[in-house]
Amino acid sequence: MAILRIEGAQIITMAEGDARVREGWVLEAVDGAIAYVGPVADFEQSGEPDELIDGSGCLLMPGLINAHTHAAMTLFRGNADDMPLQPWLEEKIWPVEAKMTEDDVYWGSLLGCAEMIRAGVTCFNDMYHLPRVGARAAMDCGIRMCPSGVLLGILPNADDMFEEAKAFAREFAARDDVCIHPMLAPHAPYTCPRELLERVITAADEIGVPIHIHLAETVDNVSVSMETYGKRPIQAMDEVGLFDVNVLGAHCVHLDDRDIQIIAEKQVGVAHCPGSNLKLASGIARTRDLLAANARVGLGTDGCGSNNNLDLLEEARLAALIAKVDSGDPTAVPAEAALRMATLGGAQACFIDDCTGSLEPGKRCDCILVDLDAPHLHPRHSLVSHMAYSAQASDVCMTIVDGEVLMRDRELITIDLQEAYAKVAESAERLFA
Amino acid sequence: MAILRIEGAQIITMAEGDARVREGWVLEAVDGAIAYVGPVADFEQSGEPDELIDGSGCLLMPGLINAHTHAAMTLFRGNADDMPLQPWLEEKIWPVEAKMTEDDVYWGSLLGCAEMIRAGVTCFNDMYHLPRVGARAAMDCGIRMCPSGVLLGILPNADDMFEEAKAFAREFAARDDVCIHPMLAPHAPYTCPRELLERVITAADEIGVPIHIHLAETVDNVSVSMETYGKRPIQAMDEVGLFDVNVLGAHCVHLDDRDIQIIAEKQVGVAHCPGSNLKLASGIARTRDLLAANARVGLGTDGCGSNNNLDLLEEARLAALIAKVDSGDPTAVPAEAALRMATLGGAQACFIDDCTGSLEPGKRCDCILVDLDAPHLHPRHSLVSHMAYSAQASDVCMTIVDGEVLMRDRELITIDLQEAYAKVAESAERLFA
Repeated sequence: MAILRIEGAQIITMAEGDARVREGWVLEAVDGAIAYVGPVADFEQSGEPDELIDGSGCLLMPGLINAHTHAAMTLFRGNADDMPLQPWLEEKIWPVEAKMTEDDVYWGSLLGCAEMIRAGVTCFNDMYHLPRVGARAAMDCGIRMCPSGVLLGILPNADDMFEEAKAFAREFAARDDVCIHPMLAPHAPYTCPRELLERVITAADEIGVPIHIHLAETVDNVSVSMETYGKRPIQAMDEVGLFDVNVLGAHCVHLDDRDIQIIAEKQVGVAHCPGSNLKLASGIARTRDLLAANARVGLGTDGCGSNNNLDLLEEARLAALIAKVDSGDPTAVPAEAALRMATLGGAQACFIDDCTGSLEPGKRCDCILVDLDAPHLHPRHSLVSHMAYSAQASDVCMTIVDGEVLMRDRELITIDLQEAYAKVAESAERLFA
Repeated sequence: MAILRIEGAQIITMAEGDARVREGWVLEAVDGAIAYVGPVADFEQSGEPDELIDGSGCLLMPGLINAHTHAAMTLFRGNADDMPLQPWLEEKIWPVEAKMTEDDVYWGSLLGCAEMIRAGVTCFNDMYHLPRVGARAAMDCGIRMCPSGVLLGILPNADDMFEEAKAFAREFAARDDVCIHPMLAPHAPYTCPRELLERVITAADEIGVPIHIHLAETVDNVSVSMETYGKRPIQAMDEVGLFDVNVLGAHCVHLDDRDIQIIAEKQVGVAHCPGSNLKLASGIARTRDLLAANARVGLGTDGCGSNNNLDLLEEARLAALIAKVDSGDPTAVPAEAALRMATLGGAQACFIDDCTGSLEPGKRCDCILVDLDAPHLHPRHSLVSHMAYSAQASDVCMTIVDGEVLMRDRELITIDLQEAYAKVAESAERLFA
């Protein structure tokens, strides 16, 4: 029995509706699951802790959840900024992706894991080629991951990719010894014909995994959907039956009221990606309306080609800020709502909220300590506000996934950063030569 | 003769039009002024350096310039978020400001200086009550500052405040032994009657200092100007003669084409404050159009009541991102333009570009080293992109102002942080009791 205990920290559990800051609380995890989180006075320890962590001067909160990314795309960071979407994809992204090897995907993903662990991200939902390789990077460093191999109906080997994606999902759905929660990932309605989507829906239902798909990211996506289906993307996908299984829709920027109603009724998960949507000028999502409709809304960084980092606190801040200016209402998406999207909302959007997203007994112990010894976190009017509006990724000093410490005193334990830098530099040199 | 030399760093000078990354360069400062920045091969040293800095693995660039803030408002950080502007000002800000003592302003300002030095800000343009006290905080820690006592025509003691502001500006304009560049600061057209503005213009001309004023921040500002002057704020202020002296206008969100033309022609400095404008839902400034018109555009954080930090890299990123989504054009305000606004543009907007804002011989040595040993700064496709789109304030590891090292290895040298935290906590407790 492995016991981990964290004492002395201020604690925000982010249990539904609860962003209160607790003092005099303690958290204990046994074999990776939270056994107790509550007042020291009521605490009955499970035994002598193997790992006793002094959280004094820190905030303990659930780990952040990156609900949509392409981690291996760290390789593209800073290579092609300030470009329109289509030339960017066609000239800068796809030709390079066609050249990527397993090593490229592994080291690109591992660098992404390193960045995320440092930024307090304990789980990421990833759509990319060679999902076995990305998952290996996550398993090697211990971070939680929802991997899925991207399916592009437009590629000649689409059928092979689908078979491999199913085999991968089936294999990992059956395992509970690793922090891997597989999905199936048809890229988007505009790149996957209806027949492929229908086969994916059947497979997701049969294997019992969610679907991860880009939805309504751009105005152009909506136009293409109108041409193909005579309906907007959400309504078209509803008609296809996509939402009869669990679906995480990335972006969901361009929605009408009916779209929002469908998303809420069918409990579609939404990964709001404000940084990417701003940088590619895709638009500003109707986050406030989605939250008002009680949709499952999390936050994603998207890939480093369009962000350019994997900093989920930055996404939380952007989500709160742009919702205000977009609605003309400074009360829109307040600090607590932003933090909720970064944690419990992300877990709900990825359909893993029984496992993570808040600090509650029975969930896995995915949590972070935030070092409050920084001028930008003083004075202490509100830690929720500070996390949403002032904290930096680098304030995270400890990251724990499934009860295992992956970063301590800001030092990564499971990743050799210098090796990752060197491997990524090699890959970048070859791919972008 | 005090000699400071920095070797081994990659260097971006941000001299006009030059954001190239240089390798094999060296920078030398003599008595606080840059004597040489260029290739090692052509370098003739001025003598044995008193301070020899190894910049290996780092980027050396000009210090960031915060072109509009109210540093003492760190005291308000996180106290009142997610509120509409007027109730926020009337219920949460002004009643507290009325109670502030010299100690409150000093420690609030010093905490702000600490945060800025850590974030690589080497100069800030500050508008606040008790400017002598704020300036004392800046002088005590060595950061460069453009202080100005805020003038509110609506207050009963407006005349006394004006006399004191003039005396302060006159005294510091005559000094060259400190990094203090005074301004005069009528708060805004809607809080200062025309007669006061005219007296301020005369005084600014006579003393030879710029004016710092809020301009066209909100739609309401425009309406009030239309009622008072029959003209929009910029055009009204042009009529009043404001732009016959050097003026830095904070915000400048709501501009028509004629406003932009005036700002460009009269060389009005603009402090674009995207974080504050988003959080208060004020709007999105026409930064791209201002830059296209060759206006003097810098970036400001505004005060911590509406931001909630003093992180100028965050402002640079926001400026680039929101310009894209607002224009629907992902090429708008590219990385280099964002970095330029954060450095040289800010110096131009504050009328101190003869002194700072870029690394050029003859300017004062205000610079920072950015530690590149971070996963979010790999691979190395473009350091300009990384600074604009991925770097964090905490990547700054050394901050130098006027040739003096204010932060080394991320440790502040001139400020006792724990003392500042304690004093600020005391102030906050009393003011918000």
